[in-house]
Amino acid sequence: MRPSEFDLIGRYFAPLSADFPGAVNLQDDLATFSPAAGHELAVTVDAMVAGVHFLPTDPPELIARKLLRVNLSDLAASGARPLCYLLAISLDASLDEDWVRAFAGGLAHDQKQFGIALAGGDTTATPGPLSLSLTAIGEIPRGRAVRRSGAAVGDDIWLSGTVGDAALALTLMERDGLAALEAEYPDLLSRYRLPEPRTLLGPALIGLAKAMADVSDGLLADLGHICTGSGAGARIVFADLPLSEPVKTLFERTPDKKDEYVQRVLTGGDDYELVFTAAPSASAEIEQSAIRCGTQVTRIGRVEQAPGVRPVAFDGTEIAVTVGGWRHF
Amino acid sequence: MRPSEFDLIGRYFAPLSADFPGAVNLQDDLATFSPAAGHELAVTVDAMVAGVHFLPTDPPELIARKLLRVNLSDLAASGARPLCYLLAISLDASLDEDWVRAFAGGLAHDQKQFGIALAGGDTTATPGPLSLSLTAIGEIPRGRAVRRSGAAVGDDIWLSGTVGDAALALTLMERDGLAALEAEYPDLLSRYRLPEPRTLLGPALIGLAKAMADVSDGLLADLGHICTGSGAGARIVFADLPLSEPVKTLFERTPDKKDEYVQRVLTGGDDYELVFTAAPSASAEIEQSAIRCGTQVTRIGRVEQAPGVRPVAFDGTEIAVTVGGWRHF
Repeated sequence: MRPSEFDLIGRYFAPLSADFPGAVNLQDDLATFSPAAGHELAVTVDAMVAGVHFLPTDPPELIARKLLRVNLSDLAASGARPLCYLLAISLDASLDEDWVRAFAGGLAHDQKQFGIALAGGDTTATPGPLSLSLTAIGEIPRGRAVRRSGAAVGDDIWLSGTVGDAALALTLMERDGLAALEAEYPDLLSRYRLPEPRTLLGPALIGLAKAMADVSDGLLADLGHICTGSGAGARIVFADLPLSEPVKTLFERTPDKKDEYVQRVLTGGDDYELVFTAAPSASAEIEQSAIRCGTQVTRIGRVEQAPGVRPVAFDGTEIAVTVGGWRHF
Repeated sequence: MRPSEFDLIGRYFAPLSADFPGAVNLQDDLATFSPAAGHELAVTVDAMVAGVHFLPTDPPELIARKLLRVNLSDLAASGARPLCYLLAISLDASLDEDWVRAFAGGLAHDQKQFGIALAGGDTTATPGPLSLSLTAIGEIPRGRAVRRSGAAVGDDIWLSGTVGDAALALTLMERDGLAALEAEYPDLLSRYRLPEPRTLLGPALIGLAKAMADVSDGLLADLGHICTGSGAGARIVFADLPLSEPVKTLFERTPDKKDEYVQRVLTGGDDYELVFTAAPSASAEIEQSAIRCGTQVTRIGRVEQAPGVRPVAFDGTEIAVTVGGWRHF
C-alpha cells in the first residue's frame, strides 16, 4: 500500500522546497515570495496526462523532468528567468512509493540544473490515468516580456537548436517500436523524452527579439501564432532549417521517406526550441548572445506582409503542407 | 464533436482574462503581473478529480465555483487578497461544448464576486475522469502572511461561520440520497457544493491572528496542523462550536444519531471556514473586524501546552474521536 498523501509530501516533496523559504517546508497550503526589484512575475501552466502526453511506462524521472521543462520553455519564450513552481499530481492506484520517489528524484535533478524550487503542491488520488499539472513562475524585467505579437514585416526569423528531432522520434517509435528507436537513434529518443528549454537564451534575447514562441505545437503552428498575433505572415526556407546529425542521417538512409519526413519536421511538435523574429540590424548581437549562452541559432526566413506561413524549397517553390500541427486534443 | 482546444479557449476562457492585461487575452502561453507596492505574492494550488472530489454529474457551474473557492480559501487563511488564477483542465470525452460553456460561466460568476481574473491555463483531453487543477495567486503585505506555526499557549481559538454543514450534507446524501437531502436540508447541500471562502475576514485578521488555517480536512485535523506547526496543543468545547440552524434541527430530529453527528462535526471537512488563534487581548478588535466583514466568529477553545487537540463536552469530559479526518487520498 502507498503511504498517505501527508507522508508522501513529507518524504519526497517537502525536501524539494528546502531552498525556497516562502514555502515554509510545505507546512502551509501557501507560499509567499517577491520578484526582484524592477521585475514582474511571469506565470504559465501545463497539464500532462498518461497515455496522452507520455507513455504510462515512461521512466518517472523523465516524466517529471519533461513536465518541468515544458513549463520552463514557456517562461524562456517570453524572456523570463525561472523562480519557483507548483505541482498538482493525481496518482493512479498502480503507482507505488518507488514511483513517487523516482518522480521526485527527477524534479530534484532538474531543480538544481535550472535553479528553481518547489513552492507548493497538491497530491491526490485518481481512478483514471496519472494526471499532472505544473505552474511555473518566473521573473522578468518589468514591461520587457517578449510577446508573440511584436513581429514586423522585414524581420528575420530565427530558430534555436535543431528542429524535427522529437517529431521524427515519435514517427519512428510508432513505426518500428521503442527498442529499434533506442538502438538506432538514441539521441532522437532522448530529445523527445527530455527537451532542453532555452532558459539562458530566452532572457538574453530581451531587447533583441521582437516576437518569440517556443516550438511545442510544431514550427509552422507556433510561427503561425506569432504571425497571427502580429498581423503578418512568414516565409521560411526548408534548406535553411537546422537539422541534427541523426535527422540528417535518417534523411540520407531513407530517401523514399523524404517527403513524409519533411512534413514531420515542419509540423511536428515537442522540440521546445525558440522561434523568434528580430530586425536584420540585430543579427550580430543575436549571434553573440547565442554564443554566450552556448546555444546555436539559425536564420530560417523572413516576416512578410501576406498572412500565413509559407515553407519553400531551395528553388523557391512552396512546400504543400498536408498534415496539421501536433495536437494533444 | 467538441470544438478544438483553441476554439474552446477563444470562446470560453479568453473572455475570463479580459480584466487582466498581463494575460494578453491568453494569446501567449504566459501572463505577467506585479504585486502592489509593499506587497508580496501568495500562491497555492488544488487539484480536483471527478468521482473523488465531486460527482461527475454535479452541475459544471458549481464544480468550477468550488474549485476556485477552495483555492481562495487557502489564500484567505494566510491573509492574502486574491489577484489572479491559472487553470489546467483535462476533459474526458463525454463533456461537450455546453458543459465547457457552463463551467466557464461558473468561473465568470465567481470572478466578478471575488475580484479575480484568469491569467492563463492549459486545456487537454484525458481518457480518464475530468481532472482539474487551479493555481490561485494573491498578494499580501510583505512579511505579514499568517502561518500555521504562530500559535502560543494561552491563545484563544476562534472559528468563522459554522462547522459540520458540509460533512453532514455528505453523510445524509450517502444515507438517504441526493433528492432527500435537497428536499429536507437544501442549505446543507449548497454549503457542501459551494463553500464561502472568507476572503474579507482573512486579510482583516493580519496582525490579529497569530496562526490560521482553513477547515478543509476537518476541524480537528486543521486545528491539529496549527498545533503541530506551533509545538502546542488545543482544547475545544463542543458546546461552544457554532452550528447552523439546519444542523441544530438535524440534531433535534434524530437524537439517536447524536454521537455519530458529533464525530462528523469534529472531523468532517469541506467547510472552508477559518480557524485561528489570537491573544485574549485581541478579542474586541477581532469581533469588530468580523462585524465589518459580515462574518460571524466564535471563540471555541484555547491553546494549551500538551500536544494534541482535545474536544470536550460541556461537563469537561473529553470526547473520544473514533474516525479520522476527511481524506481524499
